[in-house]
Amino acid sequence: MTVTGDQFIGGRSVSGAGKEFHAIEAATGNALEPAFHGGTGDDVEKAAAFAWQAFPNYRETTLEKRAGFLETIADQIIAIGDELIDRATRETGLSASHLERERTRTVGQLRLFAKEVRRGDFQELRFDPADPNRLPVPKPDLRLRNVALGPVAVFGASNFPLAFSVAGGDTASALAAGCPVIVKAHPAHPGTSELVGRAVQKAVELAGLPAGTFAMLQDSGFEVGQALVADPRIRAVGFTGSQRGGLALMKIASERKQPIPVYAEMSSINPVILFPNALRNRAEEIGKAFVSSLSLGAGQFCTNPGLVLAIDDSNLERFIASATSALSVTPEQTMLTGGICEAYKNGVAKLSGHVEVTKLSTGTANGSHQVSAALFETNGAAFLSHHALHEEVFGASSLIVRCRDENELRGVLEALEGQLTVSLHVDDGDLDAARVLVPTLEMLAGRILVNGFGTGVEVSPAMVHGGPYPATSDGRSTSVGTLAIYRFLRPVSYQDFPIDLLPPALRASLEV
Amino acid sequence: MTVTGDQFIGGRSVSGAGKEFHAIEAATGNALEPAFHGGTGDDVEKAAAFAWQAFPNYRETTLEKRAGFLETIADQIIAIGDELIDRATRETGLSASHLERERTRTVGQLRLFAKEVRRGDFQELRFDPADPNRLPVPKPDLRLRNVALGPVAVFGASNFPLAFSVAGGDTASALAAGCPVIVKAHPAHPGTSELVGRAVQKAVELAGLPAGTFAMLQDSGFEVGQALVADPRIRAVGFTGSQRGGLALMKIASERKQPIPVYAEMSSINPVILFPNALRNRAEEIGKAFVSSLSLGAGQFCTNPGLVLAIDDSNLERFIASATSALSVTPEQTMLTGGICEAYKNGVAKLSGHVEVTKLSTGTANGSHQVSAALFETNGAAFLSHHALHEEVFGASSLIVRCRDENELRGVLEALEGQLTVSLHVDDGDLDAARVLVPTLEMLAGRILVNGFGTGVEVSPAMVHGGPYPATSDGRSTSVGTLAIYRFLRPVSYQDFPIDLLPPALRASLEV
Repeated sequence: MTVTGDQFIGGRSVSGAGKEFHAIEAATGNALEPAFHGGTGDDVEKAAAFAWQAFPNYRETTLEKRAGFLETIADQIIAIGDELIDRATRETGLSASHLERERTRTVGQLRLFAKEVRRGDFQELRFDPADPNRLPVPKPDLRLRNVALGPVAVFGASNFPLAFSVAGGDTASALAAGCPVIVKAHPAHPGTSELVGRAVQKAVELAGLPAGTFAMLQDSGFEVGQALVADPRIRAVGFTGSQRGGLALMKIASERKQPIPVYAEMSSINPVILFPNALRNRAEEIGKAFVSSLSLGAGQFCTNPGLVLAIDDSNLERFIASATSALSVTPEQTMLTGGICEAYKNGVAKLSGHVEVTKLSTGTANGSHQVSAALFETNGAAFLSHHALHEEVFGASSLIVRCRDENELRGVLEALEGQLTVSLHVDDGDLDAARVLVPTLEMLAGRILVNGFGTGVEVSPAMVHGGPYPATSDGRSTSVGTLAIYRFLRPVSYQDFPIDLLPPALRASLEV
Repeated sequence: MTVTGDQFIGGRSVSGAGKEFHAIEAATGNALEPAFHGGTGDDVEKAAAFAWQAFPNYRETTLEKRAGFLETIADQIIAIGDELIDRATRETGLSASHLERERTRTVGQLRLFAKEVRRGDFQELRFDPADPNRLPVPKPDLRLRNVALGPVAVFGASNFPLAFSVAGGDTASALAAGCPVIVKAHPAHPGTSELVGRAVQKAVELAGLPAGTFAMLQDSGFEVGQALVADPRIRAVGFTGSQRGGLALMKIASERKQPIPVYAEMSSINPVILFPNALRNRAEEIGKAFVSSLSLGAGQFCTNPGLVLAIDDSNLERFIASATSALSVTPEQTMLTGGICEAYKNGVAKLSGHVEVTKLSTGTANGSHQVSAALFETNGAAFLSHHALHEEVFGASSLIVRCRDENELRGVLEALEGQLTVSLHVDDGDLDAARVLVPTLEMLAGRILVNGFGTGVEVSPAMVHGGPYPATSDGRSTSVGTLAIYRFLRPVSYQDFPIDLLPPALRASLEV
């Protein structure tokens, strides 16, 4: 398999006629071959028409057929082999071993959704029998099932070239729900996207599904994505990226004639709360583990620990000493793109120059595509009065907030915007203090962890990778884990249907 | 109990300091005593503060306590006795027997949600155990539950003074989910609202719940409602009413610093499709049943059959003859308010004057507060080219569309906006033709009925009273039936929590 610069529409490889662009090698800034061309309005129109045409058939595929399709996608991704890892490494600067793990997660995710489809619970079948003798009026027979929303637009994420891109979590959950998917590939890894896109297209063919079940469009700008979200045949959007990007899509979606849900996973600083006993017993250990989490993948995870809260005491100094020491030996890492690298450096510079902030460590010196992790500190009062300090710096930057006491720490938590995760580091003596905070944390974030860090998001039934706005656009859902399938479904009720007219899944218990 | 003109905030009766207004007797247009005063910004502020304060306690009440509270509300509503029906009859013009049935539905709804709370399934408890031996990294322990969103603003509906007002479906489902509720009473029935509000306040007291669990504000204008939706402590909105009203609230909610979900049930013309064999076998019977549904409660139901589609043939003439004959003996009915009556007359006049529309019947002559049902006809081509004909006329007005053939009928269905219900009238020979349409209908509406009409919405587990925009603001949910509880919940994941720190419901299966 070779990267050719193609898009995929209607089961065919299609050259874009839009603006030319190249993948950029993250580590060097050099352009990679071949050239890609952005899609056009006409490509969006065709892809949407194919998806709309495929929808009635695809959404009524048997559970077995749909599950098999998801498994075939996984097999086809594995079948790409080393070329996928090589290309992704060059395009993203992530290490081969990182990307191998991400590939494992990606195919595992597809297979998990296959199981979820076979289990069938997501259909939410409800049987609510008639009662002809009820007074004053007979009760009708009612049955309910979830149906797929319609074609879904999925935006590839820059930081997960496999697990949240062409065949990533949003695509897997939307396909599992019975929705055709049109992917807008992320321009930071167009070759990786093409390789995976071709694998999905192959799977569509092998499964004998309508060609419009899947499409993938390229674009280095915003036009294709915006046109996609505005298209009346698109019925939901999955997005992982910046707050600016997410808000722009939400605006387009809400101004449509028929507004549609946008599931945007946007920004989070993922507070870490260090409790006194945990700090006393394990300050050094926690400090090291914190730096490990902070610098994982150059800090380019949505669950990166960007904020550390603790009551100011001598054990916090031990944590800081341990963290700064670990940071000093953390090597520079390549960031995903020049733009992300630039934004990180700006964010770090802004913190460095902030009057209320002290720089603790910036590891080694910055290169032009490589950066080092950065650690800062401030106090609770300063944090509370400077909203700029609440903002995410995407990358391995974190801010320690020294709180005067429990009340101030609580005040800081209550002043925060919605988050994906909150981590608590506690030992036995901390449980009472932690318990008091849990209700606040439940309102703040989608996932609360004890003695761990938010990075390393498990793909499983009880995962919530979501949280109140602005962590996501819709805190009622998750983008990781099997619960994600519900984002792309809506309930339909069937009243007094003759058995022959019911969808097969709802015929089951009709026999008297 | 007597109507005093009060609001309820923080467990106390509070006089409004805003603009004075009176309830208007629907049948006569006369003002009723006593005077009401609208709430102020200060009242909104206080109610929101009380609700926010009550929230942590209320959302963690035991299932048994919360269920008992809902049942106590039902008991307290019954305990008001005849005064409730008398006042509601005067304020709404609905008949006493209609309102008695609506009261039965309202208390039944509260008791059904009590059962749903005891059952506890809405918590969505998920146990996802650790696997310390997993490679390359151990799997954490994950548990998930749904938590309540926060205080909910509920807007009383003009057309359901009991079942969708102060202690109606939105309030019942939000309270069941663990959310405190602040009701903005509908100014068309402030006295009815006060009586029910006092019953709920009494139930809060009897159940020993925090005073902020419930509040009710009055206002004849929009200020109180708008301030409520904008308040940062309000986390969701339940609304049943006009499209204009729903869209205004959606706009406020989306422009907040933290946008919140608005569940607005707005407008629907509820297409009825008459198939050829059903018409041949039962044209007269269907015609009579149609008029019964059309004129129920002066046609002021969201599920009122405002559109009839059939292939033009001689059996359709029989249906029309039967319907017009039934309409001619349908008595005039009082509408809910002068404004609604005026809007109905305007809508009917617009249809009467439309060049492509023929007036079939307007029953008896219109009075100044009483109106008669109206029936019109047009053809498929005209309907397709005049979007004004797709708009709801709130009240007992319906439009028959004569379609040339199955294709045109299908074209009409595909041109419609989202609906709450679609009804099919079929006999044996129609099933093949109906089956072909079902996928289109599933995309069009939240509920599909066979050989019935949408009015008479069952409150039960498999009901969907919802549907694609603009029937509602969010087609992924229902406002009637037990599934409505999910509108006010969001999932939270707990990772590696010590047993003592977990919410009680999630401790269950921890023991090894």
